[in-house]
Amino acid sequence: MAVYTDVAAEELAEFLSRYDIGELLSYKGIAEGVENSNFLLHTGKGHFFLTLYEKRVAKGDLPFFLGLMAHLAAHGIRCPQPVATRAGDVLGTLAGRPAAIIDFLEGMWPRRPNVAHCAAIGEALARLHLAGGDFAMTRPNALSVAGWRPLFDVAASRADQVQPGLREFLGAELDHLEAGWPQDLPRGIIHADLFPDNALFLGEKLSGLIDFYFACNDLLAYDVAICLNAWCFEIDHAFNVTKARAFLGAYERVRKLSEGERQALPLLARGAAMRFLLTRLVDWLNVPPGALVKPKDPLEYVRKLRFHQGVKGVGDYGLAMSGHVA
Amino acid sequence: MAVYTDVAAEELAEFLSRYDIGELLSYKGIAEGVENSNFLLHTGKGHFFLTLYEKRVAKGDLPFFLGLMAHLAAHGIRCPQPVATRAGDVLGTLAGRPAAIIDFLEGMWPRRPNVAHCAAIGEALARLHLAGGDFAMTRPNALSVAGWRPLFDVAASRADQVQPGLREFLGAELDHLEAGWPQDLPRGIIHADLFPDNALFLGEKLSGLIDFYFACNDLLAYDVAICLNAWCFEIDHAFNVTKARAFLGAYERVRKLSEGERQALPLLARGAAMRFLLTRLVDWLNVPPGALVKPKDPLEYVRKLRFHQGVKGVGDYGLAMSGHVA
Repeated sequence: MAVYTDVAAEELAEFLSRYDIGELLSYKGIAEGVENSNFLLHTGKGHFFLTLYEKRVAKGDLPFFLGLMAHLAAHGIRCPQPVATRAGDVLGTLAGRPAAIIDFLEGMWPRRPNVAHCAAIGEALARLHLAGGDFAMTRPNALSVAGWRPLFDVAASRADQVQPGLREFLGAELDHLEAGWPQDLPRGIIHADLFPDNALFLGEKLSGLIDFYFACNDLLAYDVAICLNAWCFEIDHAFNVTKARAFLGAYERVRKLSEGERQALPLLARGAAMRFLLTRLVDWLNVPPGALVKPKDPLEYVRKLRFHQGVKGVGDYGLAMSGHVA
Repeated sequence: MAVYTDVAAEELAEFLSRYDIGELLSYKGIAEGVENSNFLLHTGKGHFFLTLYEKRVAKGDLPFFLGLMAHLAAHGIRCPQPVATRAGDVLGTLAGRPAAIIDFLEGMWPRRPNVAHCAAIGEALARLHLAGGDFAMTRPNALSVAGWRPLFDVAASRADQVQPGLREFLGAELDHLEAGWPQDLPRGIIHADLFPDNALFLGEKLSGLIDFYFACNDLLAYDVAICLNAWCFEIDHAFNVTKARAFLGAYERVRKLSEGERQALPLLARGAAMRFLLTRLVDWLNVPPGALVKPKDPLEYVRKLRFHQGVKGVGDYGLAMSGHVA
C-alpha cells in the first residue's frame, strides 16, 4: 500500500520509448501492492500499469510470473498481460529495478464480497486451474507446509506477546499439519493469493484476476482452501456457509474435486489459515520504525483456524457428501 | 503520500449516482497528497479525481478552496475544477468525510525542474495573482509570520536533537522576521504551496496547477518567495541563479514587482524558508508510531535559510536592480 520507488518523468519517457504505447501523458503512483511499486500510466494509446519489482520479489521468478500471465490470458483467463517492447522484451530496468508494463483491466475489487462474487471466484479459480495445466514453467511454493516451520521458529519466542498461549497453539497445529499433509492430490498452477483485493469486478461480473506474484505449483485443492479463508468469512470472522457453498459449487461445475481432495479440504483449510497467520505474525512482529505499510492483524487467522479445526467434513463447507444427493 | 480512508465500490457508486459522470469502471487510491485521501476514477465519461478531506483540512475552508478553483479556471488558469452534482453541489459526504469530485488534468510534475519549467511557473504564478484579484471569498494565512512562533514553541525544546544549535538559530531568525516583516505590500490570493509536485507539465509546457489546499490571502510577493525556495535550488541545496532569473523574469513580464516588493524579497524568502522549516520540523519530531507518511527533512530548509541570510539584494536572485538596465 505504498510507492517505494519514485520515477522521474524524463527517465520514464526514456524507458517507454522502447514500447509502441504512445506518448506519456500522465502517471500516478498507486496506493496498492505491498510488494512492488505500481504506477498507473496514461499514454496516447490508453492506460497501462508500470510495476517496479522491489526486493521482496526474486528477480529470477519474474519470467515465470510474466510468462504465466501471458499464458493464462492466451487461454481465456482475464488477467493483465505484460506488454512487450518492439524488441519483444517484457522485462526491462527502470530506476535500478526490474520493471514491466502491464495492460490495464477495468473493474473494482469487492470490499464486501457477496454470494455472487464468491460464485464467480469459484468458477474463475477452476478455469485458472485447468488453463494452467499446459504451462511449461514451474515454480515451487515456498509458502506451503515445508515453509511454515521456519516462519514459526522466527516468531515463536514473541508469539505470546500478540496473544497469550499463541506459541503453544501454533506449535501443536503445525505438528498436526506436517504429520497429515496430503502428498498425492492433483497438482498444478495455483494463484496462491486470490483474496478479494486481487479480483476485479464490474458489478457482480468478474472482470479479471490480478497479482500473480505468489503463483506457483502446488496442490490445486490448497488454492481452493485459500479462497475458503479469503472469501467465505464475514468481517466479524464468522464463517458464511452460503458463500462457501456458492464458491465450491461454482468451482465444481468447471472442475470436479476428487474424493481425496474433498476429504483433505478441512486440513488444507487449516493449512491455508496457518500460512497467512504465520506471514502476518512475522510481519506484525517486525514492523520497522517509520514503516510505510501497516501490517495486517494475524489474530483474524487464529479465529479462522479455530473454525476449521472444528469442521467435521466437507458438509460443513456446504458441499454435498459424495454418494449423497445434494 | 498515502490513502488514509478506503472506500467500498458500493458506497462510491451510490455517491456517484448524484453526478452526471457515467458508470464507475475502476478506481485506484493514489499515493499522492499528504493531507487527503485521493482516488483516480474511471467512469463512462472519462477520468476524475475523488478527494476525501481528512481532518487536517478544516471543513469550513472547503467552500473557499473549491470556489477558488472554479474561479481561477473560469479566469483562464489551468487547474482542476470541482464537478457539481445534478443539484449543483460541489461538496458531499463519503465514508464519513467531506468529499469532492475534481476533473482530471493530464501532465506530470517535474522531478528535476529545469530553467524552462521555472519560467513557466513564474508566468503562471503572476497570472494566478492577477486572476485572484476579483475572487470574493477570503481566507487568512495561518502559516504566515504570526503563525510561526507557536510552531517554534512546540518544537524548540527538541530542536537541538535534530541539529545542535538549531533552537538558537531559529529563535534569533524568528525575532528578526517578526521585527521586519512588511505590512503594506500588495495583497491578494496566493497559492502558498506551489512546489514542483503541485505543477503538471507535458514536456516543458505547463498543463496545470493543482492542490490549492493552502491557498489564502497574503502578500503576493510572499508567494514569489515560496517559489524561489521551491524551484530555484538544486538537489544539493545550491541556489541556481539562472533558474531564479528565469522564474522572476517570467513573473515580471505578467505582473511587475513594486519597488517595495523587490526590497522585501530577501526577507520574504527567509520567511518562506522558515515556514517550511518549522512545519517540517514539527512533523519530524512528531511522527506517530506506524505512520504511513515519511516526514520530509527539515534541514534542507536550514541550508536554504542560510543562503537567503547572505543575500544582499534582489540582484543575488538574478533580478536587475530598479533603475538599472538588465
